[in-house]
Amino acid sequence: MDYFKESLYLHQYLKGKIRMTPKMDVRSKEDLSLVYSPGVAEPCRAIAADPEKVWDYTIKGNTVAIVTDGSAVLGLGNIGAKASIPVMEGKAMLFKRFANIDAFPICLDTQDTEKIIETVKIIAPVFGGINLEDISAPRSFEIEERLQDIGIPVFHDDQHGTAIVVLAGLINAAKLVGKNLFDLKVVINGAGAAGVAIARLLRCVDHVGNTECISVREVIMCDSKGVIHAGRDDLNSSKQEVLQYTNPSGKSGTVHDALQDADVFIGVSVGGLLKAEDVQRMANDAIIFALANPDPEIMPDEAYKGGAAIVGTGRSDLPNQVNNVLGFPGIFRGALDAQARRITPSMKLAAAYAIADFIPNPTRESIIPASLQEQVAWKVAEAVREAALKDM
Amino acid sequence: MDYFKESLYLHQYLKGKIRMTPKMDVRSKEDLSLVYSPGVAEPCRAIAADPEKVWDYTIKGNTVAIVTDGSAVLGLGNIGAKASIPVMEGKAMLFKRFANIDAFPICLDTQDTEKIIETVKIIAPVFGGINLEDISAPRSFEIEERLQDIGIPVFHDDQHGTAIVVLAGLINAAKLVGKNLFDLKVVINGAGAAGVAIARLLRCVDHVGNTECISVREVIMCDSKGVIHAGRDDLNSSKQEVLQYTNPSGKSGTVHDALQDADVFIGVSVGGLLKAEDVQRMANDAIIFALANPDPEIMPDEAYKGGAAIVGTGRSDLPNQVNNVLGFPGIFRGALDAQARRITPSMKLAAAYAIADFIPNPTRESIIPASLQEQVAWKVAEAVREAALKDM
Repeated sequence: MDYFKESLYLHQYLKGKIRMTPKMDVRSKEDLSLVYSPGVAEPCRAIAADPEKVWDYTIKGNTVAIVTDGSAVLGLGNIGAKASIPVMEGKAMLFKRFANIDAFPICLDTQDTEKIIETVKIIAPVFGGINLEDISAPRSFEIEERLQDIGIPVFHDDQHGTAIVVLAGLINAAKLVGKNLFDLKVVINGAGAAGVAIARLLRCVDHVGNTECISVREVIMCDSKGVIHAGRDDLNSSKQEVLQYTNPSGKSGTVHDALQDADVFIGVSVGGLLKAEDVQRMANDAIIFALANPDPEIMPDEAYKGGAAIVGTGRSDLPNQVNNVLGFPGIFRGALDAQARRITPSMKLAAAYAIADFIPNPTRESIIPASLQEQVAWKVAEAVREAALKDM
Repeated sequence: MDYFKESLYLHQYLKGKIRMTPKMDVRSKEDLSLVYSPGVAEPCRAIAADPEKVWDYTIKGNTVAIVTDGSAVLGLGNIGAKASIPVMEGKAMLFKRFANIDAFPICLDTQDTEKIIETVKIIAPVFGGINLEDISAPRSFEIEERLQDIGIPVFHDDQHGTAIVVLAGLINAAKLVGKNLFDLKVVINGAGAAGVAIARLLRCVDHVGNTECISVREVIMCDSKGVIHAGRDDLNSSKQEVLQYTNPSGKSGTVHDALQDADVFIGVSVGGLLKAEDVQRMANDAIIFALANPDPEIMPDEAYKGGAAIVGTGRSDLPNQVNNVLGFPGIFRGALDAQARRITPSMKLAAAYAIADFIPNPTRESIIPASLQEQVAWKVAEAVREAALKDM
């Protein structure tokens, strides 16, 4: 099937992929008097008297805003708010399908950090959570960070969703090859939103003092100019921050150099970057997550030729697909069910372990659950809800 | 039935009255590839190349934001964003029920005019129209006015919705008592959003040079201090503007004084204001719209005692209910179907005449269609769509 052509037809036919549906029919004057004037005044008064009742009497407790500025959409780049709408509608469908969450696309006609932050605060009352989506780094870091105290979870899925599923895969991959997570030397190529979030999660940056968190031994982060090290004078603020918990021995060079003796390669960059020789340079039983889409940094066949033990990609037609849909529906479901005020580090860890635990006996072609396994979201939701309640 | 008590139960049971529903099921990998990655990239690219395609490939063409700051909600006053959500959800149900429009509540955590204007502009991409709701005057005038050029219709329903239905009622009432619209002397009590909009519509303020518009002879506007006249030094900007097209003979005094020889009284103020004697002071065959809710400015029985010919109220349990639901669904349906960029004066007039024409033979107890007559919205939509296409 030509997905592009068929998808265009489908979008034109449906004229958008989601709709709003009343939970009850309004037929009679009595119905109208209950759902609208005069009866509706009563829940309004109850919320005015106690704002926490908004969770009981309105859609807030099951409603998530999918907020984007269209600056970093899929592999398409900065296509703006209007052109991003089909992706956000699709995401809303996934929220519904996997977690029965009512999500709504909020596509912002600005790419100004301050205005995005202010707008999210202003529209927050009707939402129980904010899923930031496809906002380019490093603005996305600041936007997410400065929205952490607005009283509902604000979660940049491109960062943490990806990081959580990668960690889940890594947990099972390490188990399969018999290595300890805390012994692993990891090379990450790509220092955008996802790359930085993966580095933070693998190095337990947000989990100081959390004994449940197992930090890998070493992360080396690369961008398009090569290894990120202190000697470079072209690092933006987020890459400078990354230096604090990566590259402890101060290596320099290219990503190919960095791979020497590495246990794990995680690519969130561009297709066709690596060859079998690169994998040969890595430690035995190398673990590869080549997540560039649609063309991975290295195809599984080529990686196996170089001696890789396990390969995951972002593609649905290959084994071990790292797909955010394994994470965000259950994470938000659990957060909403707990009426969590934020997504804490332990909620993220709980999600990663729940995804990993879904495969009790990992194999080379199955370290990550299939993307359409709907019970994954249920397990993730339960684990996240429990972690949220503990954190309160 | 105790609507207040039952409504509270209902809201708690439903936990909000609307939900988001996908237009198609996502079961297989193929489904996922069509509605989301990779296929969704194609409509995104098409919109990026031609932003007008957003009307073809997304929900924009059928989606309306119900925007409020919670500053003037029903009869409840300034209860804020959270407490206003149940009303906005109810309004969304009515949009769906009567016009098959997908409306979504946007309840703003600010009452600052500049911030409200900016937020509406920023969130506009996904919406085909903006229904401003329950925002207090005079801020609502400025907010609506300054949003007229954002490329989609922005319509303050409390102003124009009410005005349009009142005009519809007045057209049929005048017909029934055999008076000409342009001969009528009208007293409006209440100079808030609705009162000012009614005065503007009846005096054709927005329709200069439009021959289809029939202006009434005279409007006298009153607020809680009495007749609005040039000698007062307590008039805000919107009341000063009102002076330009009302009270041509410079009357002063109370609303009771103003009623002398008036043909029409329109109350958008407080219950129990008038007595039978007040109506006796009016011209023969007086027409009364006593729209204060739940207690009208005068009850129909009392008005008839004073010699009124026709009485309308805002109450669903009395004849001739002036209910915005006769207007906004069809108005937005027609505007969306025409992809109108704004609601023009002739679209408003077309709506009023369509509502009036729905009752070819008006009687004392039936000058306005019943609120649940769903064909009204269809007729209004068709008339508004035609007017919109003429104005383009």
